[in-house]
Amino acid sequence: MEFAGPPRLVRSAAESESEMTELVLPNDTNTLGNLLGGRLMHFIDLVGAMAAYRHGRTHVVTASMEHIDFIAPVHVGDLLILKSRVNRAFTTSMEVGVKVWVENTIAGTHRHVASAYLTFVAVDSQGRRVPVPELRPETEEESRRYEDAGRRRELRQLELERKRAPKTGELAKA
Amino acid sequence: MEFAGPPRLVRSAAESESEMTELVLPNDTNTLGNLLGGRLMHFIDLVGAMAAYRHGRTHVVTASMEHIDFIAPVHVGDLLILKSRVNRAFTTSMEVGVKVWVENTIAGTHRHVASAYLTFVAVDSQGRRVPVPELRPETEEESRRYEDAGRRRELRQLELERKRAPKTGELAKA
Amino acid sequence: MEFAGPPRLVRSAAESESEMTELVLPNDTNTLGNLLGGRLMHFIDLVGAMAAYRHGRTHVVTASMEHIDFIAPVHVGDLLILKSRVNRAFTTSMEVGVKVWVENTIAGTHRHVASAYLTFVAVDSQGRRVPVPELRPETEEESRRYEDAGRRRELRQLELERKRAPKTGELAKA
Amino acid sequence: MEFAGPPRLVRSAAESESEMTELVLPNDTNTLGNLLGGRLMHFIDLVGAMAAYRHGRTHVVTASMEHIDFIAPVHVGDLLILKSRVNRAFTTSMEVGVKVWVENTIAGTHRHVASAYLTFVAVDSQGRRVPVPELRPETEEESRRYEDAGRRRELRQLELERKRAPKTGELAKA
Amino acid sequence: MEFAGPPRLVRSAAESESEMTELVLPNDTNTLGNLLGGRLMHFIDLVGAMAAYRHGRTHVVTASMEHIDFIAPVHVGDLLILKSRVNRAFTTSMEVGVKVWVENTIAGTHRHVASAYLTFVAVDSQGRRVPVPELRPETEEESRRYEDAGRRRELRQLELERKRAPKTGELAKA
Amino acid sequence: MEFAGPPRLVRSAAESESEMTELVLPNDTNTLGNLLGGRLMHFIDLVGAMAAYRHGRTHVVTASMEHIDFIAPVHVGDLLILKSRVNRAFTTSMEVGVKVWVENTIAGTHRHVASAYLTFVAVDSQGRRVPVPELRPETEEESRRYEDAGRRRELRQLELERKRAPKTGELAKA
Repeated sequence: MEFAGPPRLVRSAAESESEMTELVLPNDTNTLGNLLGGRLMHFIDLVGAMAAYRHGRTHVVTASMEHIDFIAPVHVGDLLILKSRVNRAFTTSMEVGVKVWVENTIAGTHRHVASAYLTFVAVDSQGRRVPVPELRPETEEESRRYEDAGRRRELRQLELERKRAPKTGELAKA
Repeated sequence: MEFAGPPRLVRSAAESESEMTELVLPNDTNTLGNLLGGRLMHFIDLVGAMAAYRHGRTHVVTASMEHIDFIAPVHVGDLLILKSRVNRAFTTSMEVGVKVWVENTIAGTHRHVASAYLTFVAVDSQGRRVPVPELRPETEEESRRYEDAGRRRELRQLELERKRAPKTGELAKA
Repeated sequence: MEFAGPPRLVRSAAESESEMTELVLPNDTNTLGNLLGGRLMHFIDLVGAMAAYRHGRTHVVTASMEHIDFIAPVHVGDLLILKSRVNRAFTTSMEVGVKVWVENTIAGTHRHVASAYLTFVAVDSQGRRVPVPELRPETEEESRRYEDAGRRRELRQLELERKRAPKTGELAKA
Repeated sequence: MEFAGPPRLVRSAAESESEMTELVLPNDTNTLGNLLGGRLMHFIDLVGAMAAYRHGRTHVVTASMEHIDFIAPVHVGDLLILKSRVNRAFTTSMEVGVKVWVENTIAGTHRHVASAYLTFVAVDSQGRRVPVPELRPETEEESRRYEDAGRRRELRQLELERKRAPKTGELAKA
Repeated sequence: MEFAGPPRLVRSAAESESEMTELVLPNDTNTLGNLLGGRLMHFIDLVGAMAAYRHGRTHVVTASMEHIDFIAPVHVGDLLILKSRVNRAFTTSMEVGVKVWVENTIAGTHRHVASAYLTFVAVDSQGRRVPVPELRPETEEESRRYEDAGRRRELRQLELERKRAPKTGELAKA
Repeated sequence: MEFAGPPRLVRSAAESESEMTELVLPNDTNTLGNLLGGRLMHFIDLVGAMAAYRHGRTHVVTASMEHIDFIAPVHVGDLLILKSRVNRAFTTSMEVGVKVWVENTIAGTHRHVASAYLTFVAVDSQGRRVPVPELRPETEEESRRYEDAGRRRELRQLELERKRAPKTGELAKA
């Protein structure tokens, strides 16, 4: 896909960094008082969208999320801390990394709860894909993330091709 | 992990099948009138939990979700249809498959929107893991899903070990 | 009321069948942990609207609901199952039947919680009434429902006339 | 059902009167910007419960709602006014009348939107039925409502018996 | 600021009086079962906006709220009663008084929970300020409130000027 | 009020700093697409409670909020950034400062929207007041805030006494 239009800008990963803190209310929990997995995914999607929004400076829609593990339970009354930043920008999409901790405020400790990689697509107000600025990594850590994001993208594309390929002696089903 | 306790039951995949329909309301959408990705993940988690809940017949918590693609946008006013069933039961966990369609009610057509695989863990009211009934596949399709669920689990465990392994010349970071 | 426009289609009751499953969350309950009656009515209205929407294939608005009994309480953590289908279509309105069960997932049993009949009116995007396809009953059961819906409509219209009739020696009040 | 316990009190209808005003927000509406019928039923149930709660001075649960017509649409930005009072108290239940208007604040006019009769049952914290004070009507209007509530109750009980009676040559179905 | 346009109307304080009753649900509370302060402020803002809306008969936006004390805690299951009325109208703004009680329905008593003064600005559908009718106090009580509202406004303007004035030997910071 | 119990700790203002980012969704806005004032107050209360919670390391309840101005409107789709920190700790209460900006992500600019001072009280799980650690200011800025918080508290107490004093020739009314 090729775009005319204004020359692409370049931005740093730091410019996209976003942070969200949520106090887990009864409203967000199951009958055991644990945060629902789906509510946590909702918060992850929101904080991820913020980073993509700050980098792309246009509307963004969620295109995919990588495998996610819920490492530790989150309880009603806990403080949830979510941080996100863009790892790499492609032509019209961005990979965003999100990391989530739960804070035990009484003890003053943090516990890692989940990490996620999401891909967001930049769109205009009619929902058509638009180009996004490049991301230039500035630290060693950012370079590592930039390279990893590229590898994850290749794996996703190989997986997509594998799924589309005709299967011998078996029909793809729901 | 070994469990004494009552002999494990066996159930079919069909017994766990669950269905949810959601009318997409303004409440669930972004400023473009599109369903938020995180809301869709929330619905997927709920319908997935229902299938696990019906199979395990105890409390369940979300342990992980595999890579998910959002294939097509969902708009305010659309009818969202979500179906789930348990693919395979392990000692205290279950893999659940969820498939999502959006219905264009005017045209009477359905469009595939997303597919997801989630793992749920069965727990008692104190949050301790409890064993779940076995799942016995009854159709060829169910056998294929059963085998695939086993392969996905092996891949997840390999991936976990890879992450835990010491890295040469590089420290694992955020 | 007469409509020109395209010849009316005919659809079956089965084409309108809709199903909704809700996990009852703390959010939906009173201080006793029981599902609020009004939340249940809200779910009934939504699943009823889905059936009407699928039959009419246009916007629908709730016009009335018949007498409803809440036969059994619903508790936080219960699985609520709602099913709906169009019983009969009139010129621009449809009668929809909704039945609600609560599933005791531990015991694997269902309990009937409530049944409701709602009337929905089909409207265009300016809110003007539009004609809907006919409903042709295909089974004995569907024929019985079709006849019952006709009788309920006659009773509603008699009741409306009775209310509008001048009362002797008494003024109608709030 | 007979109750020992403290002598029943007597209260007036006026003591139970409740009022709720709701500003209709985008959150409560469908894609046409109309208040969802189910949201209106939810508000009706809440304001009805308040009157029953004030009369019974114990927990209350919704037992039934009479036929309800949605006479006029309600739009986003409208002011919804709901009023309720207990019409009559029976041993452990109360009939509550609810009337709803929408206020066109620009024009300063009110429009009647819906009227409803609900029955609430008084329960203790374990969900067991408990007796409620008597309602003594004090005005002519209150006496009329008191008599009407008695007639509606008789009709409901006749209807219940009719439904339970064996049907000749036909099996009751879902 | 001067406005041409239609001659300004005059309205009484009584015409703007609004009342809201809220049943405090688990959804609105913290882990101790107390109503969240921010939810109470939200209800106060809504009932205040209703009074301003009824006086101004145009869109209104919240401009400020005076110091507010939360005198007594509110618990899940309590009945919250909020009353509001316009105290005084200025050219394009209105001061609204809100008073909040919690009802102990079992004991039949009320307890004062909070009082607030808010200023709302009248705007058209493009968000531009528009003039509002005058408020003419009709009782001694209303005259006192009218005078007090004038004094509070003067104090607010003095405070604003004080904040804008250059400070000697110190720079204003966040 | 005197407390035995463990010796009070000392913490810095920096340890309590909290940040919340909210994407303004249709759900939070009025019919003009502006964020409701009451929703903003709700977010302010939440982020304020987080800072108090981190300093006090116990349950906190909102006791009061100082005068607040809504300087600029916030629109659907905007990014709202809220920052909070404890300014000063008293025996069992804490003054928290909150500052709110709206981010215009397209232009990459921030705009100050509101500032607030809230007082939170530390309580145990039965709702009884408990002592909180002291706050020791570490920068010149923190010292200024510490002094200002003391002055605001004195003013609040003078105001409270003034309100309680008997009024000559006039009765205090609602």
